[in-house]
Amino acid sequence: MNRANQFVQYFLAHRNVTVELINKIEKEYYDYKPTPTSMPAKDLVTHMLFTFYKFAKVAKSGNPALFREKIEETETDLQKLAEAYTEKTKSLLESLTDEDFDRMLDLTQIFGAQLSVAQFLQSAMDHEIHHKGQLFVYVRGMGHTELPLFIKRG
Amino acid sequence: MNRANQFVQYFLAHRNVTVELINKIEKEYYDYKPTPTSMPAKDLVTHMLFTFYKFAKVAKSGNPALFREKIEETETDLQKLAEAYTEKTKSLLESLTDEDFDRMLDLTQIFGAQLSVAQFLQSAMDHEIHHKGQLFVYVRGMGHTELPLFIKRG
Repeated sequence: MNRANQFVQYFLAHRNVTVELINKIEKEYYDYKPTPTSMPAKDLVTHMLFTFYKFAKVAKSGNPALFREKIEETETDLQKLAEAYTEKTKSLLESLTDEDFDRMLDLTQIFGAQLSVAQFLQSAMDHEIHHKGQLFVYVRGMGHTELPLFIKRG
Repeated sequence: MNRANQFVQYFLAHRNVTVELINKIEKEYYDYKPTPTSMPAKDLVTHMLFTFYKFAKVAKSGNPALFREKIEETETDLQKLAEAYTEKTKSLLESLTDEDFDRMLDLTQIFGAQLSVAQFLQSAMDHEIHHKGQLFVYVRGMGHTELPLFIKRG
């Protein structure tokens, strides 16, 4: 298996759980937040979907400026957004070559460091897992108790 | 930098944030939970600390059975526990050789798969990051608003 396929497998082991949680969020809970200072559910979900997509765009293009680009999106249904952005992100990741993973990215402006694409994409995973952990609390707060494990291997 | 030192740096970039959050939890909040079906704060914290320590013990010894061992612990102060288990875990991780990271572990009983020590320790990180994400929500629920970023590099 090449590095892209290995990484996509790792991505989906977590992203599929994210999507499973998103699919539990009814429209009337889009503004739910578990604490007064938390992000509303819909903001947390779009932040997760857009951020990983931007990580993948930067990894593919080598242009860190894309990280700061604002995504204009008219779709507001979270399930549809999850499906569309997971697909777009997966396609970008699949298109990476083994050599791409060793390319260095100058992220001193964003992360204060130079990172290889492999390290940069690990940060994308860390970010996804961090917010997915929070999403579990949100979904519990909405009354759900039948929840998946935090990772689903192949 | 050898692989152990690289990994310890990655571990601490997240664990130091975990500890910063734990240090915000006053004793009267040890039983706090953000939703009725969530774990109490003290259980979440000890679960995180004990689990990573067990991951490190299995990585070092090559014996997956240690993962199921129950940890007997009389200390109940979460700050002291965090300090002690972070130190014990760090020492174990530092003692790994570059070759140790490529050793295969038979985890079919626990994870349904064979994993290299490197992959196994990545799962330990994923687990830490997942629950740390939840801990952020807990600490917000306790009224804290001055919170660190989810990762602190070097």
